[in-house]
Amino acid sequence: MGKIVFGVDIGGTTVKLGMFDSQGTVLEKWEIPTVTEDHGSHILKDIADSVNEKRAACGYAAEDVIGVGVGAPGPVDAAGLIYGAVNLGWGDLNIAETLQPLVGVPVKAGNDANVAALGEMWKGGGRGCQDVVAVTLGTGVGGGIIVNGSLVAGFNGAGGEIGHMLVEEEETEHCNCGLCGCLEQYASATGVVRLAKRRLAQDEAASSLRSFGDALTCKDVWDAVREGDALAVEIAQRFGYYLGKGLAAVACVANPEVFVIGGGVSKAGEILFEYIEPSYQKYAFKGCRKARFQLAELGNDAGIYGAAKLVLG
Amino acid sequence: MGKIVFGVDIGGTTVKLGMFDSQGTVLEKWEIPTVTEDHGSHILKDIADSVNEKRAACGYAAEDVIGVGVGAPGPVDAAGLIYGAVNLGWGDLNIAETLQPLVGVPVKAGNDANVAALGEMWKGGGRGCQDVVAVTLGTGVGGGIIVNGSLVAGFNGAGGEIGHMLVEEEETEHCNCGLCGCLEQYASATGVVRLAKRRLAQDEAASSLRSFGDALTCKDVWDAVREGDALAVEIAQRFGYYLGKGLAAVACVANPEVFVIGGGVSKAGEILFEYIEPSYQKYAFKGCRKARFQLAELGNDAGIYGAAKLVLG
Repeated sequence: MGKIVFGVDIGGTTVKLGMFDSQGTVLEKWEIPTVTEDHGSHILKDIADSVNEKRAACGYAAEDVIGVGVGAPGPVDAAGLIYGAVNLGWGDLNIAETLQPLVGVPVKAGNDANVAALGEMWKGGGRGCQDVVAVTLGTGVGGGIIVNGSLVAGFNGAGGEIGHMLVEEEETEHCNCGLCGCLEQYASATGVVRLAKRRLAQDEAASSLRSFGDALTCKDVWDAVREGDALAVEIAQRFGYYLGKGLAAVACVANPEVFVIGGGVSKAGEILFEYIEPSYQKYAFKGCRKARFQLAELGNDAGIYGAAKLVLG
Repeated sequence: MGKIVFGVDIGGTTVKLGMFDSQGTVLEKWEIPTVTEDHGSHILKDIADSVNEKRAACGYAAEDVIGVGVGAPGPVDAAGLIYGAVNLGWGDLNIAETLQPLVGVPVKAGNDANVAALGEMWKGGGRGCQDVVAVTLGTGVGGGIIVNGSLVAGFNGAGGEIGHMLVEEEETEHCNCGLCGCLEQYASATGVVRLAKRRLAQDEAASSLRSFGDALTCKDVWDAVREGDALAVEIAQRFGYYLGKGLAAVACVANPEVFVIGGGVSKAGEILFEYIEPSYQKYAFKGCRKARFQLAELGNDAGIYGAAKLVLG
């Protein structure tokens, strides 16, 4: 039997785990609940128990394990120190140092969005590329920057926090982060709905979106775009304007080969690119205009793949 | 005798060269003219001759040389391929592959601004840091992004081209790159003068800057700021607004520990930071606000230091 590696993705309600061979073939995939009681002090212990149990059940010794990679929802620096994870009840904690003695093998940790980006580079939409910017358009906007095959963690673990890049100086509502005009306020699922509600309130223009009332979702907007609803198209253009402009700024720093777009909003599919790419091409520095746009491919598994890759290096 | 390394910084009129020990102590420093005739085809040959001659004159054999690092004025990717250098007459050229057989030792190449950033990280204003953004405020605005001690070259060698980040959507004049509203249009030496001339033309407000007429320089503006000239202070605030806002966007991607500010404009000294930092703090994501600002320390030698470091890894 060859060597194996574990990838762990810690979420607010469940922990996803994967056991991989060193080529990245998933051998086992399972979940355990995230126990956030007692300031989340059980989480790493539960992960260690689950990893050790799975390893033994599959007939592997600790020596067969290359390591355990972990993605966690908070800023994590290159040394594996997380600067608090509100959803888990954690304060500052060195994930790598805490988990290592419990599993008896090397541990590496990263921010969940960053780690998911690494997964997409390795086995998903960024396959074969070394310079990748992954963008997760979910409740918020997360980012993961990969340069020459390695993650940009950042000095305080805030590398790739592109959701909080200023893209609208006239904004008066605050982002969750406290700033105004962050990319996340327009390009997340919540942001798209917000743009739509604002536009609908602006005048009486006819739109199929009006029938949804307060229950309007991001998916409704993109469905209406696909059906040619003029007002929905306006919203899609606004979304694309902000995201394309923001990614052009990201490209001035990282100059990626490919942008991999994932998260709930990306379920709308390649129609997104019709709105993002013209804006990107308009604002991007000429040396960065060859960048391609791809949809993420690994969905919720990106985290466990990326966590495994974090260990494999 | 220990091993040595050469650092080479190719400019439009002169090539700067340095011979270093492996700890980065400069042993010899000299220049040769840049011969741009014949599409710049003599440049690498001249560099090789000069390096070989110096090595032999100092009693070193090729085996004593760890390698030759080169910084060149154009986009250079991680493999050492430069995508054209207008000032040198070069089209696409693999610097590393071309120079290597002429010197008989390993060669690495990078963009000159990026390589200078590496120099500042190693021996200058970013000493001791692994996550550094270097900003060169000269005729244009160049940048060099260092993540975990390594340069971000970018897929097309356009990593760190932060001078072409959009910071003013209302701009109608074009940047040299063809876009409008680039950071370079406000934060370079030329940009500061442009801001000043625009402001002076706006009304009849009194200012010591009026006496300079068309000959007004960036230095004149900062001298006037230091003397408390109200209009010059307004220009400094505008400069700081754009640069702080742009660097806040850079920080969302790279989350550096330190920004190292160099180039001609930085000769104004730490007074720059009084105008950059408030704007940076206003626009930066909270996880990035601990970044420090430092002046570059190596001046025109940053390139040869960084080129040497490129080889040492």
